[in-house]
Amino acid sequence: MLTREQFEDLDRTDPLASFRAEFELPEDVIYLDGNSLGPLPKSSKERARRVVEQEWGRDLIKSWNKAGWFEMGQRIGNKIAGLIGADQGEVIVCDNTSLNLFKVLSLALDMKADRRKILMEGSNFPTDNYVAQGLCKHLGYGHEVIFAEREQLIDAITEDVAVVSLVHVHYKTGQILDVKAIMEKARSVGALVVWDLAHSAGAVPVDLGDWKADFAVGCGYKYLNGGPGAPAFVYVAKRHQGRFRQPLDGWWSHKAPFDFTRDYEPAEDIWQMMTGTQPILSMSLLEEGVDLMARADMGMLREKSKRLGDMFIQLVEEKLDGCGFEVVSPRDAEVRGSQVSLTHDYGYPIMQALIERNIIGDFRAPDILRFGFAPLYVRYSDIWDTVEMLQDIMQKNLWNLPEYQAKAAVT
Amino acid sequence: MLTREQFEDLDRTDPLASFRAEFELPEDVIYLDGNSLGPLPKSSKERARRVVEQEWGRDLIKSWNKAGWFEMGQRIGNKIAGLIGADQGEVIVCDNTSLNLFKVLSLALDMKADRRKILMEGSNFPTDNYVAQGLCKHLGYGHEVIFAEREQLIDAITEDVAVVSLVHVHYKTGQILDVKAIMEKARSVGALVVWDLAHSAGAVPVDLGDWKADFAVGCGYKYLNGGPGAPAFVYVAKRHQGRFRQPLDGWWSHKAPFDFTRDYEPAEDIWQMMTGTQPILSMSLLEEGVDLMARADMGMLREKSKRLGDMFIQLVEEKLDGCGFEVVSPRDAEVRGSQVSLTHDYGYPIMQALIERNIIGDFRAPDILRFGFAPLYVRYSDIWDTVEMLQDIMQKNLWNLPEYQAKAAVT
Repeated sequence: MLTREQFEDLDRTDPLASFRAEFELPEDVIYLDGNSLGPLPKSSKERARRVVEQEWGRDLIKSWNKAGWFEMGQRIGNKIAGLIGADQGEVIVCDNTSLNLFKVLSLALDMKADRRKILMEGSNFPTDNYVAQGLCKHLGYGHEVIFAEREQLIDAITEDVAVVSLVHVHYKTGQILDVKAIMEKARSVGALVVWDLAHSAGAVPVDLGDWKADFAVGCGYKYLNGGPGAPAFVYVAKRHQGRFRQPLDGWWSHKAPFDFTRDYEPAEDIWQMMTGTQPILSMSLLEEGVDLMARADMGMLREKSKRLGDMFIQLVEEKLDGCGFEVVSPRDAEVRGSQVSLTHDYGYPIMQALIERNIIGDFRAPDILRFGFAPLYVRYSDIWDTVEMLQDIMQKNLWNLPEYQAKAAVT
Repeated sequence: MLTREQFEDLDRTDPLASFRAEFELPEDVIYLDGNSLGPLPKSSKERARRVVEQEWGRDLIKSWNKAGWFEMGQRIGNKIAGLIGADQGEVIVCDNTSLNLFKVLSLALDMKADRRKILMEGSNFPTDNYVAQGLCKHLGYGHEVIFAEREQLIDAITEDVAVVSLVHVHYKTGQILDVKAIMEKARSVGALVVWDLAHSAGAVPVDLGDWKADFAVGCGYKYLNGGPGAPAFVYVAKRHQGRFRQPLDGWWSHKAPFDFTRDYEPAEDIWQMMTGTQPILSMSLLEEGVDLMARADMGMLREKSKRLGDMFIQLVEEKLDGCGFEVVSPRDAEVRGSQVSLTHDYGYPIMQALIERNIIGDFRAPDILRFGFAPLYVRYSDIWDTVEMLQDIMQKNLWNLPEYQAKAAVT
């Protein structure tokens, strides 16, 4: 049987332990929802004050040059490149994940003009499906989105597929797709691949160069701790740049934006993925999150993340046996992202009861309780305390109160 | 001859004078570039601290509901609606102006499926041209952007034009287009109209309802003082909502985003113009700017704006006669936005010399000096001091220094 002392020992010897102090985490909260919204880095608090009060308030319009506002998307993109195995000039930060997916899918369809199919995993985060469906309908050339679930994916990658567009780590289960097998099969049939790294960047090893990836998109506000609605990033392999043109081409994507010429001429590098003016304040804070992440060793992060997940699963099995929970994340840490998901018929009220006790995970309909273990700031003892609290909630039926039943009824 | 006392008198009796104190304007700066980036409202400074430190830092993921993050785009949209003569539910804040233009142009082309032309004023801010050109190329059905300049616009609105897409106030000259004549001609030939209100919202009277407008887009960071790269707004007349579907349809535009269904179903109201997750911090500060603007009387704002412009022109003619400046903005204040532009062969070094003396206007190639007169915070005496300084710069040849020549050479 595990004991809290073992978890405390792991915290004491955790080589990443010092990172927790870099965040403004409330003392009384156990935060296991960094896979949805990462917490506030202390440096971001200072950066926000500087950007608002000094750069905007005092320096005004001059800050576009003086504070590097205009270049910031590429500067942060280059920093993210270092986290995901991309080269300098292959990543830029702008807009949101959905919009960036629209751009790279447009490029991919242009590159595969004789094919009409986009292959996706329909059960994954649906914004990707919606964007692909919107693009197909908009073009009106008979493009279609076809769906396959993980076991069937490889077989579904056939010679009529233009682009395989997949979320690398499943948002519900945390399962990691088999990149090598998918890339190989796609290459063998001449299909392109788009990777959505929303739940990967800063959480699991990603090496786009090694993968020989074509395109990728990803999120700034989850494991990169960029703040609510932080801009997203987009990756285009160098070999694909300058050949085709994404259609959301506002002035920031022009080869000479400040010439204000009447007609569009595309930038030939990663800037072609830009659109119009970017939300500078939100983008600035993403830089702090990325800088913080870049100081941590990805190997150590991954080791801790796997261990947090393994120990959580072990505790759930020891302490919540017979309570109706099922582990739906992979037990093999090698194919599990930085989260563990449980199902329970009363998942919603149970998660509500947990949140009211200041342990923050989240719920995804119909029955999934998600627990994110961001290794930069989650402690081993947090895992222990979470399962202890779950045990308490179940033993005392704390979730089964009239107020929760009412809430569950409307969910 | 005008005297500084006259300008000081006008400041003393200005019914809008108290608004200046609501901004964090540096004491030693005369800021005439609010048409590019509005200054920092004091309340935005406080709001930024609250959003970062309390809502993100302390309340974390709960703020999506508790702090109204998710609904914010529509809440601010409804406030902007009140400034531009739109109804509740016709305006939403999201993304940037270029992206919003892509959406409404897509809708307009779908609504006019038998037509292939988009008519624009090529000399105006080019991001609009680029987006329209990108859309046409992307669709690949022979759509094209055709250009006409203001005198020729009415004649160019013919029965083969699907949509007329115009910037209401010209970004270089400040000239206001004749909305009534354009709307009438467009209606008579069955064309739709998109208005870009980038230099209009908060600056000149706009009444989309009275105009019987179809679509509009606009900018948050100019006269609405939303901060650098604040999200933009988009207007869709109620009668056009729910009929067609804009293609950048991420999960926020789904009719039930939190159902996470596999397939897209469009929201039937203004939410269909949404894409994915929005930059909450940048968006929050826009709300402060809009709230501040909404407290001012638009009639008073317009009167002051016209008078500032008239007096600037009068002063330029009195004091800068023979210096090589030409007024390229309309002399008739009724058709002039909240700016006055001058041309000068050495416009760039002259503006640099002015900026180094803490009078901030801007320069637009090849030869335009722009002076924005945002009536919420620009004083009459600022106009006097600006022209005095220009006179000093010209008389003493302060712009004609080696350092400016070097800068001019690289422009």
